[in-house]
Amino acid sequence: MEGKRFITKVLERLSSPAELQRLSLKNLQELAKDIRELILDTVSKNGGHLAPSLGTVELTIALYSVFDFSIDKIVWDVGHQAYTHKILTGRKNIFHTLRTKGGISGFPRRSESKFDYFGTGHASTSISAALGLLLSEEIQNKFGKVIAVIGDGALTGGEAFEALNHAGQLKKNLIVILNDNEMSIAKNVGALSEYLSDVRLHPQYRKAKKDFEDFVKGLPMSEKILQAAYSVGYGLKSAIVPGNIFEAFGFTYLGPVDGHNIKVMQDIFTRARELDEPILIHVHTKKGKGYEPAEKFPEKFHGVGKFDKENGEIEKKVSPPTYTEIFSQAILELAEKNKKIVAITAAMPSGTGLKDFSKKFPERFFDVGIAEEHATTLAAGMAAGGLHPVVAIYSTFIQRAYDQILHDVCLQNLPVIFCLDRAGLVGEDGATHHGVFDISFLRTIPNINILAPKDENELKQMLFAAAEKNKPVAIRYPRGAGLNVQLEKVPKKLDWGKAEVVFKSLEPEIVIFAVGSMVETSIDAAKILAEKKIFVEVINARFIKPFDREFVKAKAKSVKLFVTAEEGILNGGFGSAVAEFLADENIFVPVLRFGIKDSFIEHGSRSELLELCGLTAKQIAKKIFDKLSGEEDIKIYSRNLKEN
Amino acid sequence: MEGKRFITKVLERLSSPAELQRLSLKNLQELAKDIRELILDTVSKNGGHLAPSLGTVELTIALYSVFDFSIDKIVWDVGHQAYTHKILTGRKNIFHTLRTKGGISGFPRRSESKFDYFGTGHASTSISAALGLLLSEEIQNKFGKVIAVIGDGALTGGEAFEALNHAGQLKKNLIVILNDNEMSIAKNVGALSEYLSDVRLHPQYRKAKKDFEDFVKGLPMSEKILQAAYSVGYGLKSAIVPGNIFEAFGFTYLGPVDGHNIKVMQDIFTRARELDEPILIHVHTKKGKGYEPAEKFPEKFHGVGKFDKENGEIEKKVSPPTYTEIFSQAILELAEKNKKIVAITAAMPSGTGLKDFSKKFPERFFDVGIAEEHATTLAAGMAAGGLHPVVAIYSTFIQRAYDQILHDVCLQNLPVIFCLDRAGLVGEDGATHHGVFDISFLRTIPNINILAPKDENELKQMLFAAAEKNKPVAIRYPRGAGLNVQLEKVPKKLDWGKAEVVFKSLEPEIVIFAVGSMVETSIDAAKILAEKKIFVEVINARFIKPFDREFVKAKAKSVKLFVTAEEGILNGGFGSAVAEFLADENIFVPVLRFGIKDSFIEHGSRSELLELCGLTAKQIAKKIFDKLSGEEDIKIYSRNLKEN
Repeated sequence: MEGKRFITKVLERLSSPAELQRLSLKNLQELAKDIRELILDTVSKNGGHLAPSLGTVELTIALYSVFDFSIDKIVWDVGHQAYTHKILTGRKNIFHTLRTKGGISGFPRRSESKFDYFGTGHASTSISAALGLLLSEEIQNKFGKVIAVIGDGALTGGEAFEALNHAGQLKKNLIVILNDNEMSIAKNVGALSEYLSDVRLHPQYRKAKKDFEDFVKGLPMSEKILQAAYSVGYGLKSAIVPGNIFEAFGFTYLGPVDGHNIKVMQDIFTRARELDEPILIHVHTKKGKGYEPAEKFPEKFHGVGKFDKENGEIEKKVSPPTYTEIFSQAILELAEKNKKIVAITAAMPSGTGLKDFSKKFPERFFDVGIAEEHATTLAAGMAAGGLHPVVAIYSTFIQRAYDQILHDVCLQNLPVIFCLDRAGLVGEDGATHHGVFDISFLRTIPNINILAPKDENELKQMLFAAAEKNKPVAIRYPRGAGLNVQLEKVPKKLDWGKAEVVFKSLEPEIVIFAVGSMVETSIDAAKILAEKKIFVEVINARFIKPFDREFVKAKAKSVKLFVTAEEGILNGGFGSAVAEFLADENIFVPVLRFGIKDSFIEHGSRSELLELCGLTAKQIAKKIFDKLSGEEDIKIYSRNLKEN
Repeated sequence: MEGKRFITKVLERLSSPAELQRLSLKNLQELAKDIRELILDTVSKNGGHLAPSLGTVELTIALYSVFDFSIDKIVWDVGHQAYTHKILTGRKNIFHTLRTKGGISGFPRRSESKFDYFGTGHASTSISAALGLLLSEEIQNKFGKVIAVIGDGALTGGEAFEALNHAGQLKKNLIVILNDNEMSIAKNVGALSEYLSDVRLHPQYRKAKKDFEDFVKGLPMSEKILQAAYSVGYGLKSAIVPGNIFEAFGFTYLGPVDGHNIKVMQDIFTRARELDEPILIHVHTKKGKGYEPAEKFPEKFHGVGKFDKENGEIEKKVSPPTYTEIFSQAILELAEKNKKIVAITAAMPSGTGLKDFSKKFPERFFDVGIAEEHATTLAAGMAAGGLHPVVAIYSTFIQRAYDQILHDVCLQNLPVIFCLDRAGLVGEDGATHHGVFDISFLRTIPNINILAPKDENELKQMLFAAAEKNKPVAIRYPRGAGLNVQLEKVPKKLDWGKAEVVFKSLEPEIVIFAVGSMVETSIDAAKILAEKKIFVEVINARFIKPFDREFVKAKAKSVKLFVTAEEGILNGGFGSAVAEFLADENIFVPVLRFGIKDSFIEHGSRSELLELCGLTAKQIAKKIFDKLSGEEDIKIYSRNLKEN
């Protein structure tokens, strides 16, 4: 097995996580080195969340050397820092399959291991889930300890505070480890982040920390020392953290401690395990620890593709500009001429393409942290105040703000533009990250207009057109490269609400109404079918809600088969909207809907997953062909329709 | 005008809110009396949020006497405490229309007044919206101050923390007034609530507060006193609130002050207006203030129906037990025999019917505060730990947890039962509170089963049946009385996934597949149509997802018209699911979908709103009749279908 040659001594010998409780500090430190090597080797080939996982190697080892996770339980917030956890819990020999189709997931998954007690992916859920696990232990008369590991980034999400507030009141021995690396994905924001930084940089802490670490260094483990460790750790708190925020939430605060010093963490964890109250342990770690390029550029190496591990050079595919890059340019141009445009992101200035905007218009740019709910209502407030906000958030994360889109933006019919990047299948990040629900859940909301561009130039047209409208608009577009089309300098004015024919056919028997990324695929499918003398017209829907009803009506009456295609869940999606409309209008035409069936889609490359979902041109062409040739009733019906 | 006779001197003379800045303290105190009388008089007749609005009379008056809300802006969190605001801003003469169809809303609405700067209804949005308004002032070079008024209950919602964290970092002069009445709707929960109580009860505060209030009492207003007021107020902070949580978020904390002392509040507000930093003013109010029954029973008088204002007796309609009451009993019986059942609510122990459960099984009951996201992930954690949680939340509020239902519960296919009370049109609370989106947004999520009972006995059957399933289940049921059917002691085992015929017809031409509350209505419609010799069969769908496909298929092939009926938004709803299915199956039958069109529905009585939405038996019967008689193509088509 390819990954195996990187498993050196300690990691190689390890057969169960419980063995960590028997290892010497020296062995544990060696283990950290082995694991770091395996992570680096694998991620440099498969891509993945390098910097977060390198930052938690010692933390994870310290946890496993103190707790027994066949009884105790752990929840990893977001989960992208859990590679060491995976390697320690029976997955070292398949770790090289990380993020590949059929291989292990980049996030904890209950279906993958009994040690993955709770699956994660979206931020800020760990304290809630861990509290649930802890209460279920108690109610069922069991004694397992439960730990939540949450980053300072994820702590900006409101759900984490809801959970802290509840856990603090219940006064159970929930252990929350604050993995403070001063980052979420980008540099962390928010007042709380400044507060944590004050704590870390406080001179008293810096001195006390050194004294404390000197004190415990090299000494044998004994109750006396544990006591001392605890006292010092505990003492630190009141000495240097005046008015600790976590105490207000009912937590006993311990720390901050060095998250790369296994011994110090072991001592603190051992004490925390024995207390009978909610504990927050503030651990200070370094993102990318142990790999210089990642330590230097933690944002670049947060989630990364293939790279050369010798020099840290990230493989740059020569490819057309991405949708993100085009959005990035387009919003700059738009904001230049329209002073009402402001931009909001939730901890993703680079990912969403707003980095340049933040530099050019710092006073009109707002990174709110991992806080999609606040981002949305903030935008609604700005719109109510006369601005025209653009909220750029990945499709999967805007799920957090369903209520705010409905209640704050759309009910008041306010002009907010949602730019939903990574809509559709995102690939290797898998089930928690696919942006396949947006069409369906947004379509339930009155007043919103939902658009999807067929290419990157149309994205620019749509953004400019949305800025002319005084209403809520969502534009969804896929991950990755555009189609490399010519970009209009001044985008052509979009005919609002209108679909367009993009692939003509003389007297077509079939029409495909395609949404966004599926337009190009549908054209390819039409070309395949043309070779079989089946004539298909392809329409770029452009508008999902409201879609071009007149166009649909006209087409539906003149064809044998009406096809819809979308990269999204079929339940309640675009095809569903068309089916509703045809039913309402008493138009009886066979409808074939392409999209994602009622299930969650796992990880794999985007192209593998499109194939899995039957969304390649070849598959679409075949299914249309089969439908036409195989199903008698359609033909009979179509004939009758023409006769009437 | 009926309300008019209660407008006594000061309130009567008032013609614009700006005049409050000219009134003497004595006049303002008289005004408070007048307003309290008008609120009491109106709410005793129309019902409404009495206790919250009585608690903020002086606070609102003090705000209007200091700020100029033609320039400054205010956002009322939730908005049910804003009656005084409404009365002061041009609505005193129409206040008697409160919560009636065509009358003024019980919540701030931008469409109702230019002083309603931001509409509210759901909790915890005010700080986000206010920050948005403030930033829009600054970006557009305006000088308005912006105030958010948020209760200690709403502060348990995560979005409020997301906003505090962001606002604290931006360091703008946002003024947040914490209206601390020690309640959300029920007694407030959470560690933070205990923290606030510590602050209020701290002896130093109690003494300082008295000194401070004595000091300012009766003195003429001058800069010197303002300075002193500020200093004392400010001084209080560091003296008595060790480690103030709001300071960690970057806010300057002032208070706590007596929220029924206009003078003290004026002084603090005047200073706060001039500071150039985020300010949190902690105001201590009493829910129901000035009306003894409401002071004594604030939960009962939170949202209340008609009552006798002389003695506080609430009008008790003699009506069948409500769905809530039946749920309340059923979950007790279920929990008795099934030890895995635990119950979770978000600040609504009474509203959701879990009060008795909380008394009988205190160790298995969890009120998490206004925190639907945490409630849902907590339930997922408990389910992962081996329990079977029941999450009882109103349909409209579960919108907040869309992502958690999807990502934490359904992706992991965990056994959590969502009991969604107030599904459908709720009546007088209006657009922000109708639970009409749940079918549509839940249906987008894989793995969940969605059910709706036709009556209260079926609700009990469904709850018991759901507890036998090892998967996510949502049961939605309407507000108000059940159908007064016989309750089975041991509920009959529900045939999972199966629909049932509830109104038979010999050789029916039409079938109505009805969901939940619409089953009874559809039977009535069928009876009306039977008189016209149109024979309709009514099916109780019971299962919305997955619905009984075989039944739909069989029926669709044998009838002239297939009708669906649901009390929910049509886009993506149950009828949509049926239309999708018929399209997939190439079944060509006219479909008529009853439900709520793509728009927000305002307030009014439930029966008025059902009529507005065309969902009465008479309206349904008429539309079916018209469809059959008026539309030629259906007949033609139906004939052809039979010929084939």
